[in-house]
Amino acid sequence: MTELDSNLPIGVFDSGVGGLTVLNALRKAMPNENLIYLGDTARVPYGTKSSVSVVKYAEQAAAALIERDIKLLVVACNTASAVAIEPLQSLYPQLKVMGVVGPGAEASCKVSAEGRIGVIATESTVKNNAYQDAILRLNPSASVTAQPCSLFVALAEEGWHSGELVERIVAECLQPLTSQVSDHLDTLVLGCTHFPALKSAISHVMGDDVVLVDSAETTAAAVEKSLVESNLINKQPGAGDVRFLVTDGPERFARVATNFYDEEIQLPEIQLVDIQHFKVP
Amino acid sequence: MTELDSNLPIGVFDSGVGGLTVLNALRKAMPNENLIYLGDTARVPYGTKSSVSVVKYAEQAAAALIERDIKLLVVACNTASAVAIEPLQSLYPQLKVMGVVGPGAEASCKVSAEGRIGVIATESTVKNNAYQDAILRLNPSASVTAQPCSLFVALAEEGWHSGELVERIVAECLQPLTSQVSDHLDTLVLGCTHFPALKSAISHVMGDDVVLVDSAETTAAAVEKSLVESNLINKQPGAGDVRFLVTDGPERFARVATNFYDEEIQLPEIQLVDIQHFKVP
Repeated sequence: MTELDSNLPIGVFDSGVGGLTVLNALRKAMPNENLIYLGDTARVPYGTKSSVSVVKYAEQAAAALIERDIKLLVVACNTASAVAIEPLQSLYPQLKVMGVVGPGAEASCKVSAEGRIGVIATESTVKNNAYQDAILRLNPSASVTAQPCSLFVALAEEGWHSGELVERIVAECLQPLTSQVSDHLDTLVLGCTHFPALKSAISHVMGDDVVLVDSAETTAAAVEKSLVESNLINKQPGAGDVRFLVTDGPERFARVATNFYDEEIQLPEIQLVDIQHFKVP
Repeated sequence: MTELDSNLPIGVFDSGVGGLTVLNALRKAMPNENLIYLGDTARVPYGTKSSVSVVKYAEQAAAALIERDIKLLVVACNTASAVAIEPLQSLYPQLKVMGVVGPGAEASCKVSAEGRIGVIATESTVKNNAYQDAILRLNPSASVTAQPCSLFVALAEEGWHSGELVERIVAECLQPLTSQVSDHLDTLVLGCTHFPALKSAISHVMGDDVVLVDSAETTAAAVEKSLVESNLINKQPGAGDVRFLVTDGPERFARVATNFYDEEIQLPEIQLVDIQHFKVP
């Protein structure tokens, strides 16, 4: 790895398109930063895969980004953040590795009035207790209820975002949580980067009293803070390039991305890469 | 590869659990056959992946099964059957390779009174025109309408099989097809091995006049015919073993399998294997 230089891009990876909600937030907070985004579309989704596999996939994605020289690595996937931050950080001690679970947990503790926090995420993230543990570390008296909602990933990708039918599906999935509203569940963490696409439906179902927390913005703020502290903010005029790498299907990526990303992605901006052959320790 | 022996198992692979509906049919038709089933749960689903990736994954799955000695290979996944049968057959000319698309197309042509056939499948299978081409080869005057229903895969895996809400979701997805009922769509092919789990909901939505075709049984019949012709039927008394290989998460596989497989799968029967490192031509 070359020495870190403020002109280098921030590397961002996700299992597929969901992390583009984090990319949006990074773009908005730091429009002058160069970014490389990798979507592991060849193996998406991660949320129903085992921790062992998710760590391996994360290590391969990180290797592909680091090969291209980056100054900071953002794991923009909750499932991977839940299990792979520590292994990645010890593999690459010179590089700051940041996930979305920590910032999401922090944000939920900040906004939660009474510490009665719900978390919705993929099966793998919930099983891992990542959010539960992170929230309880910050607020040991919090009460945390986590609910897997794997179906939301497919809904978000297929463009089923709102409307009466979507709200009925969301209500059915959230039923174990809504039955707790009487116990003053006051905050709900959207613990999967796909879920902001369903935000309005989730909000309708949960009711106005429940604050929804999406870790994208707080992650972007944490990344900016880290770059400032390490004097790595890009000061080159006219920077702000974004490049995309995918491990499968650039056409589908460009199409499904419109459900998650604020800018249009042109096909020639997307490079197809193979990362499955990377040997990881 | 050793010489083919009738005592060898039939190799069956699928992207995950869906192919277990084909395994059911094989068990029922030929209870004395040994079977090895491989579910590529590390990369499931195939239905939203590119043809290039699906062919590569199929070649790696086939290599893992052939390494274990099999007498016939069944591609129990519609998406892989749509693109990988020819590449696999030319890679392994001594071994009979059979998919589910051919038998499914054949069955639909047999039962369709007027040749107005609908096909529901994953995005990748539909895009590939696999069923459309196979049906038109058998009945050039047929009219074929294909509709991607990727959402059904998640519904089937999450155990959302029946009930009023499931029927509403199914109705919404099938709307492009049901609007054709007035044009006498008489047959509907369930062109994804996950879809039989939703059979009753699909049938309710399509109405009694539309015959549903599930390729599992016709595939099993075609496999039996091929084994008889090549004198490879297992005549060893007391055979009928079933082994399972998965590329990720044996626990999840055993749990989700109950939605698709008639027998209970015990965890020790499932072996975890890594096939991603297999170099394919």
